[in-house]
Amino acid sequence: MTLDASCSLTYATKSEVPAIFMLRPRSGWAQWIMREEFMLDPQVPVVEYTDFYGNLCQRVVMPKGEFRFSMSCRASVPDHIDAMPTAKRVPVAQLPVELLHYLLPSRYCQSDKLSRLAYSITGNVPRTYQQIARLRNWVHENIEYEYGTSNASTSALETVNTKRGVCRDFAHLGIALCRAVSVPARMVVGFLHELEPMDLHAWYEAYIGGRWFTFDATEDEPKGNRIVIAYGRDAADVAQATLYGAFTCTEMKVTVGAVCERTEGERPTPPEVL
Amino acid sequence: MTLDASCSLTYATKSEVPAIFMLRPRSGWAQWIMREEFMLDPQVPVVEYTDFYGNLCQRVVMPKGEFRFSMSCRASVPDHIDAMPTAKRVPVAQLPVELLHYLLPSRYCQSDKLSRLAYSITGNVPRTYQQIARLRNWVHENIEYEYGTSNASTSALETVNTKRGVCRDFAHLGIALCRAVSVPARMVVGFLHELEPMDLHAWYEAYIGGRWFTFDATEDEPKGNRIVIAYGRDAADVAQATLYGAFTCTEMKVTVGAVCERTEGERPTPPEVL
Amino acid sequence: MTLDASCSLTYATKSEVPAIFMLRPRSGWAQWIMREEFMLDPQVPVVEYTDFYGNLCQRVVMPKGEFRFSMSCRASVPDHIDAMPTAKRVPVAQLPVELLHYLLPSRYCQSDKLSRLAYSITGNVPRTYQQIARLRNWVHENIEYEYGTSNASTSALETVNTKRGVCRDFAHLGIALCRAVSVPARMVVGFLHELEPMDLHAWYEAYIGGRWFTFDATEDEPKGNRIVIAYGRDAADVAQATLYGAFTCTEMKVTVGAVCERTEGERPTPPEVL
Amino acid sequence: MTLDASCSLTYATKSEVPAIFMLRPRSGWAQWIMREEFMLDPQVPVVEYTDFYGNLCQRVVMPKGEFRFSMSCRASVPDHIDAMPTAKRVPVAQLPVELLHYLLPSRYCQSDKLSRLAYSITGNVPRTYQQIARLRNWVHENIEYEYGTSNASTSALETVNTKRGVCRDFAHLGIALCRAVSVPARMVVGFLHELEPMDLHAWYEAYIGGRWFTFDATEDEPKGNRIVIAYGRDAADVAQATLYGAFTCTEMKVTVGAVCERTEGERPTPPEVL
Repeated sequence: MTLDASCSLTYATKSEVPAIFMLRPRSGWAQWIMREEFMLDPQVPVVEYTDFYGNLCQRVVMPKGEFRFSMSCRASVPDHIDAMPTAKRVPVAQLPVELLHYLLPSRYCQSDKLSRLAYSITGNVPRTYQQIARLRNWVHENIEYEYGTSNASTSALETVNTKRGVCRDFAHLGIALCRAVSVPARMVVGFLHELEPMDLHAWYEAYIGGRWFTFDATEDEPKGNRIVIAYGRDAADVAQATLYGAFTCTEMKVTVGAVCERTEGERPTPPEVL
Repeated sequence: MTLDASCSLTYATKSEVPAIFMLRPRSGWAQWIMREEFMLDPQVPVVEYTDFYGNLCQRVVMPKGEFRFSMSCRASVPDHIDAMPTAKRVPVAQLPVELLHYLLPSRYCQSDKLSRLAYSITGNVPRTYQQIARLRNWVHENIEYEYGTSNASTSALETVNTKRGVCRDFAHLGIALCRAVSVPARMVVGFLHELEPMDLHAWYEAYIGGRWFTFDATEDEPKGNRIVIAYGRDAADVAQATLYGAFTCTEMKVTVGAVCERTEGERPTPPEVL
Repeated sequence: MTLDASCSLTYATKSEVPAIFMLRPRSGWAQWIMREEFMLDPQVPVVEYTDFYGNLCQRVVMPKGEFRFSMSCRASVPDHIDAMPTAKRVPVAQLPVELLHYLLPSRYCQSDKLSRLAYSITGNVPRTYQQIARLRNWVHENIEYEYGTSNASTSALETVNTKRGVCRDFAHLGIALCRAVSVPARMVVGFLHELEPMDLHAWYEAYIGGRWFTFDATEDEPKGNRIVIAYGRDAADVAQATLYGAFTCTEMKVTVGAVCERTEGERPTPPEVL
Repeated sequence: MTLDASCSLTYATKSEVPAIFMLRPRSGWAQWIMREEFMLDPQVPVVEYTDFYGNLCQRVVMPKGEFRFSMSCRASVPDHIDAMPTAKRVPVAQLPVELLHYLLPSRYCQSDKLSRLAYSITGNVPRTYQQIARLRNWVHENIEYEYGTSNASTSALETVNTKRGVCRDFAHLGIALCRAVSVPARMVVGFLHELEPMDLHAWYEAYIGGRWFTFDATEDEPKGNRIVIAYGRDAADVAQATLYGAFTCTEMKVTVGAVCERTEGERPTPPEVL
């Protein structure tokens, strides 16, 4: 499908505040960014760089007063999430070296403390895509989606205990469980068509059968039509805005709309390492 | 100034041809890409990746028949080229390691064979920005700009002999002379406002006083209002299109227009290593 | 001083266990590895790669039964830790982009939850090297060094509560407090001459005044004669051995001895970004 | 086989000369460096860094007078070169992005000018390993190995004309011919057991069937027992020493000796992308 998406962030500050935005989606094998537009108001100098994970980051010093950062884009994305129940896990000894760090515990995904839980969930499920699907289903069924029950410092370990959270908590727990069974997993933030209520969304990917697959523990059914904005180990890496100073976010507005069906004859074949 | 620029390439092929385009300018410290738009006709799958130099590259398989790749962008860029006659060369022993490869000879810039010429030109000029300016001036004064006198395989060594060439030849010779006196230099391709006749343009940058400075040996006077598309060692790294198969380029169209003055209060300070 | 150091790890396993060792120190601006020797017993195939942080990692599949990985090296290292009370913090807006991820919270360093504590410690200390020294002193004075009070999953937040730990806990808390005041900090593991009892050691570095400075919260007095083995965000990144399977570590032996004084006339000047 | 190898370079200079050595072999999937030793005389400060290609580079300022840089190492390496006549070429459209730059022409390998020659040599040979073997054989049979007929600035294009050269010229021409038929190729320098007369050696690798294969156009028969020191596009990237100033190389001494047979039960399986 071809989607039009936008995100606008407005801040009020009482002094200059250095900030890093991560709001320029990149084209990749599964999405093609056909159009992008940015607006900074006021128009301050901005420097863009690429981080460890290939995300494009916009660095500015927000002036005192009100500041708005908006972007919109049009992207061609797949209608469906790939699933492949027969895809086998890659043995740790054969994982590409650049993916090994996605096995490590991180700030919000304490996989080192969740092995027992993870293996109790997967039981005798074959060590394939199905094992990771089982973990996802467990999160979906056992964690209640509820606004206001978690915050920016909530980790997977806390979510296991409270059994409540929002999309980022679902993703953190899903990631931590994958890593606990030695499957590389990474956080994704982006746009999801028909998300209700509309907002930026967080989900995750697991590396199985030589490629990344999308998982989303908040949804009843797998849904495509996602625009990826950023990848990272967990939410610490992929915040849409990281601000170094006192501020108030006075408005955040996200829109996603369908333009038309995806017009390509076929999708590219996913490369083995993405 | 805020510029609108576009580039459209049309090809005719008799079979599928794998191709790599390099036509998505990136924001950096000196330019801010406010808007971008891409069109592939027909719309085939496209995968984007980042190369060694940070350039965004678009990889497609052109279908048999006619294929068009077009892009347009709006960018905020400086009106003037920075010059700093007092900027001192960085001694080789103190150059950042990631710049050392810009001292090496490359396909079109045989700096290893041009030391004698380079030092005969610079003579006793102080080992500052002025030394590199002197080399640029020599190229500007001694090479005649003339279409059709060179081709895609012409190197700096040949240009020294023929004394003729186009912008890429001027850039290659300028780069080779910089490297011959142990100053890192890199090729730049992009858009230049008011270039006559309008086309993509090639120039170069030299690393002096802890940062990159722009040089353009084809111009009488230094001119700003440039949008950088790509950086590399020489033209081999920064072709706007690299095609692996037989093709005819049936049309290439480039436009650059002024939208308005640059509205930022001030430009960002260049970081030491860009 | 010139040091001879060695580390030998012996494991017993009941099946093949994929493992990643991180035991080849690299030469850098402050240390020169003059000699290295490795022994795997039995001699299984080993593949070496470089991780995100530039650490050299050795990947093997440990065979069933007993396996030993030993290394020894001779290195020329500085006798003293640099300190520079006047060194000013680099404002966040001017930090090199490749260091920004050292500001983020990580698995064992929940800096996002320690701002209040950090600023209560630093009070009105100037925002220089002294601020970071104050944080280090606080850890040194308030945390008790005691074996057996923490384990591989203990984080800075827990150490703040228990007030006990070993070198890695001291380092994690020191790092978390630096990041909490927006100063980049990274974990270091390596050898320390005259450590009592001898073992591998963990400490940290903070980025101030345009370079990294060494801090060690376990020591009464700053001590030099350290060989760095690996850098990372925290202990998750720099384990000397990461094993994917069941194992018993039957022996770990570390030695560090002085060979002679450092014979170089002078140390290299630290580059701005290391 | 387990090999002991050494290289010692002695220079005389009349002033300080910045220099970059590239003489620390790295362990990889096919070689394991068991022991290394370095000696600088006089012992000046040295900084080591990793370049674009993963090579470890040693940066020093050679003092005025005499300076010697020596290294020795013990390495476990394969006795035989892998060959796989059935290995198929990877279509350009499916090459891993990080290998694409090995298709480009470079300083000494003007592949853009050698397509006609390359295809005239390969004729109807299947587009497999055999095509690249055919190119190697052509170089071996048509270029005469003769000292003193080429120098540090000789390129593949010149070698095609003079039909003479040494190992680096053979490698450059082999590389250029591979790239001319759109197969990625890279330069290798290292040690070769029983090379006659003993010296550092240059050869090349081509990427076929999803991995790199070794080719050496100077040898009648494929020979193993090689220690790789460095990889790059061509000789510009992999010089054992790059000096920025006037110098005399007063001695260069290379030794390679067999210690014992390779004792590993089996070699590691080559990963798809190395």
